[in-house]
Amino acid sequence: MTERIVLAYSGGLDTSVAIGWIHEATGAEVVAMAVDVGQGGEDLETIRQRALDCGAVEAYVADARDEFANEYCMPGLKANTLYMDAYPNVSALSRPVIVKHLVTAARKFGAKTVAHGCTGKGNDQVRFEVGITSLAPDMKCIAPVRDLALTREKAIEYAERNDLPIVTTKSNPFSIDQNVWGRAVETGFLEDIWNGPTKDVYDYTDDPTFPPPADEVTITFEKGIPVKIDGRDVTPLQAIEELNQRAGAQGIGRIDIVEDRLVGIKSREIYEAPGAMTLIAAHKELENITLEREQARFKRMVDQRWTEVVYDGQWFSELKGSLDAFIDDTQEYVSGEIRMELHGGRATVTGRRSESSLYDFGLATYDEGDTFDQSSARGFIDIYGLSSKQAAARDHKFDKGIRL
Amino acid sequence: MTERIVLAYSGGLDTSVAIGWIHEATGAEVVAMAVDVGQGGEDLETIRQRALDCGAVEAYVADARDEFANEYCMPGLKANTLYMDAYPNVSALSRPVIVKHLVTAARKFGAKTVAHGCTGKGNDQVRFEVGITSLAPDMKCIAPVRDLALTREKAIEYAERNDLPIVTTKSNPFSIDQNVWGRAVETGFLEDIWNGPTKDVYDYTDDPTFPPPADEVTITFEKGIPVKIDGRDVTPLQAIEELNQRAGAQGIGRIDIVEDRLVGIKSREIYEAPGAMTLIAAHKELENITLEREQARFKRMVDQRWTEVVYDGQWFSELKGSLDAFIDDTQEYVSGEIRMELHGGRATVTGRRSESSLYDFGLATYDEGDTFDQSSARGFIDIYGLSSKQAAARDHKFDKGIRL
Amino acid sequence: MTERIVLAYSGGLDTSVAIGWIHEATGAEVVAMAVDVGQGGEDLETIRQRALDCGAVEAYVADARDEFANEYCMPGLKANTLYMDAYPNVSALSRPVIVKHLVTAARKFGAKTVAHGCTGKGNDQVRFEVGITSLAPDMKCIAPVRDLALTREKAIEYAERNDLPIVTTKSNPFSIDQNVWGRAVETGFLEDIWNGPTKDVYDYTDDPTFPPPADEVTITFEKGIPVKIDGRDVTPLQAIEELNQRAGAQGIGRIDIVEDRLVGIKSREIYEAPGAMTLIAAHKELENITLEREQARFKRMVDQRWTEVVYDGQWFSELKGSLDAFIDDTQEYVSGEIRMELHGGRATVTGRRSESSLYDFGLATYDEGDTFDQSSARGFIDIYGLSSKQAAARDHKFDKGIRL
Amino acid sequence: MTERIVLAYSGGLDTSVAIGWIHEATGAEVVAMAVDVGQGGEDLETIRQRALDCGAVEAYVADARDEFANEYCMPGLKANTLYMDAYPNVSALSRPVIVKHLVTAARKFGAKTVAHGCTGKGNDQVRFEVGITSLAPDMKCIAPVRDLALTREKAIEYAERNDLPIVTTKSNPFSIDQNVWGRAVETGFLEDIWNGPTKDVYDYTDDPTFPPPADEVTITFEKGIPVKIDGRDVTPLQAIEELNQRAGAQGIGRIDIVEDRLVGIKSREIYEAPGAMTLIAAHKELENITLEREQARFKRMVDQRWTEVVYDGQWFSELKGSLDAFIDDTQEYVSGEIRMELHGGRATVTGRRSESSLYDFGLATYDEGDTFDQSSARGFIDIYGLSSKQAAARDHKFDKGIRL
Repeated sequence: MTERIVLAYSGGLDTSVAIGWIHEATGAEVVAMAVDVGQGGEDLETIRQRALDCGAVEAYVADARDEFANEYCMPGLKANTLYMDAYPNVSALSRPVIVKHLVTAARKFGAKTVAHGCTGKGNDQVRFEVGITSLAPDMKCIAPVRDLALTREKAIEYAERNDLPIVTTKSNPFSIDQNVWGRAVETGFLEDIWNGPTKDVYDYTDDPTFPPPADEVTITFEKGIPVKIDGRDVTPLQAIEELNQRAGAQGIGRIDIVEDRLVGIKSREIYEAPGAMTLIAAHKELENITLEREQARFKRMVDQRWTEVVYDGQWFSELKGSLDAFIDDTQEYVSGEIRMELHGGRATVTGRRSESSLYDFGLATYDEGDTFDQSSARGFIDIYGLSSKQAAARDHKFDKGIRL
Repeated sequence: MTERIVLAYSGGLDTSVAIGWIHEATGAEVVAMAVDVGQGGEDLETIRQRALDCGAVEAYVADARDEFANEYCMPGLKANTLYMDAYPNVSALSRPVIVKHLVTAARKFGAKTVAHGCTGKGNDQVRFEVGITSLAPDMKCIAPVRDLALTREKAIEYAERNDLPIVTTKSNPFSIDQNVWGRAVETGFLEDIWNGPTKDVYDYTDDPTFPPPADEVTITFEKGIPVKIDGRDVTPLQAIEELNQRAGAQGIGRIDIVEDRLVGIKSREIYEAPGAMTLIAAHKELENITLEREQARFKRMVDQRWTEVVYDGQWFSELKGSLDAFIDDTQEYVSGEIRMELHGGRATVTGRRSESSLYDFGLATYDEGDTFDQSSARGFIDIYGLSSKQAAARDHKFDKGIRL
Repeated sequence: MTERIVLAYSGGLDTSVAIGWIHEATGAEVVAMAVDVGQGGEDLETIRQRALDCGAVEAYVADARDEFANEYCMPGLKANTLYMDAYPNVSALSRPVIVKHLVTAARKFGAKTVAHGCTGKGNDQVRFEVGITSLAPDMKCIAPVRDLALTREKAIEYAERNDLPIVTTKSNPFSIDQNVWGRAVETGFLEDIWNGPTKDVYDYTDDPTFPPPADEVTITFEKGIPVKIDGRDVTPLQAIEELNQRAGAQGIGRIDIVEDRLVGIKSREIYEAPGAMTLIAAHKELENITLEREQARFKRMVDQRWTEVVYDGQWFSELKGSLDAFIDDTQEYVSGEIRMELHGGRATVTGRRSESSLYDFGLATYDEGDTFDQSSARGFIDIYGLSSKQAAARDHKFDKGIRL
Repeated sequence: MTERIVLAYSGGLDTSVAIGWIHEATGAEVVAMAVDVGQGGEDLETIRQRALDCGAVEAYVADARDEFANEYCMPGLKANTLYMDAYPNVSALSRPVIVKHLVTAARKFGAKTVAHGCTGKGNDQVRFEVGITSLAPDMKCIAPVRDLALTREKAIEYAERNDLPIVTTKSNPFSIDQNVWGRAVETGFLEDIWNGPTKDVYDYTDDPTFPPPADEVTITFEKGIPVKIDGRDVTPLQAIEELNQRAGAQGIGRIDIVEDRLVGIKSREIYEAPGAMTLIAAHKELENITLEREQARFKRMVDQRWTEVVYDGQWFSELKGSLDAFIDDTQEYVSGEIRMELHGGRATVTGRRSESSLYDFGLATYDEGDTFDQSSARGFIDIYGLSSKQAAARDHKFDKGIRL
């Protein structure tokens, strides 16, 4: 029986051309696999047909939208995942779910090799290959665009020569990746980092300069997960989709950043993530009222490491699992409601309430009903400041005290 | 000679009344000390005169605006100081400079005791007293409002009985602290954390809903410090002030948060910090292009600890000094220009350039001129993913692999 | 009905005297509660009788030895708990289990107040009171020795006047706390930190200078917990006890340190923990072969924070729970055997083996059978070193390169 | 002019053979460079002559012993560098100083390429190449043993065929690296990690089982650096050398560990570092009395990261520089004397004293002279425990409180 290779297929030029390339280079039959992570755009049946037209022996579409939202985006939300304090790991979260479906398909179709269309200077090649090696240590992985050094020019030439059913414009202004959690845009004139983004860069968000009237939304969380919007039950996928619409209409969630890639270079990225950024803002404020201070302080460090580990393609790693255990434990009481105003690029929390809140009006208030025992303060300060006082006295002894 | 006590004097009801209280309780003469940290509001000469009218034997105003901006706000900027990812340590940064002037005044006036007007449930009492104990381990510190349990009602009664020249309205909607780095508002109806802020809460910022036309600004940094705005030389103080105006007009820098106080309670706070938030956004993006990745990742942890330490009143501590040494070392190359658009509540970076940038167009570009050697990628991924691969193979051996 | 107070009773002078003091000061009946955490020394029935003879209305002994070993020492072992890299949290681990029994007894005897015998400058008062407040937020806690400022002299005077059945020597060379996990000695001539410890300080360990012949021991762990010694099944308690004997005979586990207390002072401590130190050494090396590198690196930070949190009396805190979740997750594969040589103060690992080891002979060996693909190295190094190379090139550009 | 390549030359088989290989493969002339980092063993003049006899056009020995001790070992000491809590970075510290001399020689001899003899599965190749790329981004680096896949068999065959003046035994029991800071042994029967080390593994240390009489030593530090031993002035190099002798005679500093390499594998290593381990033990205890608690707690994390970064070959990185800045700042007061007993494998601190100590007898003592105000304790505990109490009360409300 002829060997088979399962290719992660996007429907675009590179992976369309890769079907033929792989077959020619290896003699294997190519099975094309497209994973729906809510990227929108072309109809997936159209994409499936294109794969067959380009020479795939089988073509398969997996609807992974709910799985992606539940098992990948929600852990990201619990971790308030913001790489470099800014980027909600849009592509990084989608790669492992795609990898999982790739490997599943390879098992099903008896393939011992999987293929992806990434280049050799990005993060996604690492996310794909480390993911595959983790799910299937026995499986081989090939990357024709990288390893055969296939340029855009060669791809167009190949497509035209073989009459592939795909549009081949020489000027592709940007490289784009999108899913329900957000959208990433890079390359082109954005590579000059002094250039501001132009309007055509954006698709998930409207211009925040001319917003519609303010939109008030109330999000209900249970253990860190959104379960209602404005009182209506929602799944995680629905929550992201609805907030993509409503926050996107307000121009919320645009990000413009120079980012540190895993492969050692800095690159300019534009992201749009209206739903994700709105949910993270709400989730953080709900944590502010439900997490104990020291737990919250350490969680910031855990969240940061979780975010780096996921960005760096180690979704299936041992460390990621242990960080998840910490984070999940913290979410026990992260339940309640957050009211926000969405307007003109801003997602602003205006109210929060929770049965499990640690905010205590009696302790906080300066009005009647104050239950805080202020007489404890002097003793607290004496002991809390003692080691600093000792150190300061030493500074003075050595005449290194702060000059007055 | 009569003993003297130096009181940190704000001009408000509590500290005006404290002049008499302290004198009555201790027999000491009270020297009032007001420190100008750019809080605006009343004329400081008026305040000085009020202290004398309330019974102070001396009253003194120190202009600490440049010192505050240079030696307190700028280290905060280098640390991108955002407590709980949100609050730029507005009051926390001003307390140590006030403490320094208090202690200086106490030395000058021969006082062995200083006094402040803080209550017993806030952070500021700790910042004052730990600061004083660090600068002057021999000095005593008293807190009449806290230790004598003086309520607002008693203060008003005292002021009226003694005919003090101060307005005594029973309803004071909020408790406010302000300086050039920002403005803090708390108490009143904000103590119900489901209530949104009303318009009268704000003073440093206009409503972002109806902004003037977008304002483009270019900020030039040298070693982490702003030195020019739109090409004009500025001092740190001038940079903050100008951006307070320009970003404030756009409604930038409003913060609404439930915050973990050092004394173990959560409290609702509204902040306005238009200049600070704009500068921090610019500084972070300049770091993104000038810091090496691993240095930047560890610096996030150092910045977080710096921020906690300063929030927690340990400005003069040994740890704070060592964290500063780390941070200062990182700022060597944080020089260059950041262009931002200020509009409708958003301070958005649109361009960045720097002689010392680590962004390398040749490595980043996918166009002609690409200098990145993609053939290194396979070897990198093999070794980078090796320990995860080993661990995953173990999972499979023990049948604990990820289910497909 | 007369109010009751449950007192944590050790059988020593202070708590014997406290029975009468508390009754005189409050009118309440005192219930004495002794908890067996493997401290050895006097027979607990003798101690129980003494409490009654000193005036307690009830006296109760709880055997918490297995509970202490299983639920307190074992989490400490999994965290490799060494405060300041040295001290295995001997007293810190025992306080929460004592607190739990105190509160249980209070509920049983209808007491609304519990009492302990700690002074006001140690860690244990904090561990007791924060523990009690966590288990029973409604319960009151009193500390007669601290709050009534009862000195040793007053205690002796009281005991003699009331003819209490307790030996009252004026010179008590040291203050001692012990349990199965270890023994702590402080005060006396040890307070001069230039003094070395004398032989009479030690009790759990023999002098390592003249050891018996070397003792080889093999410890088998399952998920981080010792389950066999030399092939014989053991409970955690038995493992600690047997290693206390065998390692103690070799003089292993003596610690002499100046330590940072939670209350802001430094204090000199001598500890003996032969079993604990042997188990931790074995457990660490088993982790070395079973944890993935990045998981192990982050776990070090988690272990350190766990250790601080427990030392600082926050056993029942939210943060402690979340750190436990992380640590427990890491222990999944920490199973296998460690062979050690115990001799002359040294517990040295000499062999390790595990079904779940990540040590791979094929990858590690330089002999025949090497499966490591060395050709990956160049690509790895190129990309791994890329960001440092970029930064170094900048240094050279600015003439700040390392001088040669 | 013929091109030149500078080779890091050890005098052993691989690098002796590499001289000819490199010349044959590249046509370049080979300059051999040996760096004296206190490795002992053969006379370096003998080694120099051997290089010439093997075909080097120039051979050069650099005495880097003091430089290594001062600029590489001492920063390691200040960082208490112990990789995986065990290994004092023996080889990792020596690589950068060797790299520095290699690059210096390359500049001097007009070479554009340097060469090293490392294999492709160790850490040292990374340390060499990332070091070279940092000091000389323009320079090429070759690794004949790795890149030409030269096995031991081929090397012996080449040496015999070319009659090279070097002993070629087929069985080389171990692979060894040594310098004044310590000695590393690996491979051979140690690759079976259940095997204990045999006596012939050791060279820097005598058997601790039969030690000479105990040796008391007093080490004086200034700002973290040893400056006197038993009152005699010493340089850092002399301090390490003397303690290598004295602690080595007692069998101190033997380490047996399975370690995580940077290249993703675990490997078994035996180390001997008698001087280093003694100095680190002394330095840590001196820090215990001179560093403020919070500074010390954070420094542990900085030390760990410093150690990883250096182990991972990033000596010349930006992050390493910033971590050094933190660490250097902490050493300001790490001055004083540590008295130790060296005996039978144990280096035990028995006394410590310092003008800049933060240990305060008055605060610590339970005897007369106690200056600690115990009345502060209650207030401290109330506030210190407040956030835990609130969280615990919530647990009880949700019936998730600790079961009693």
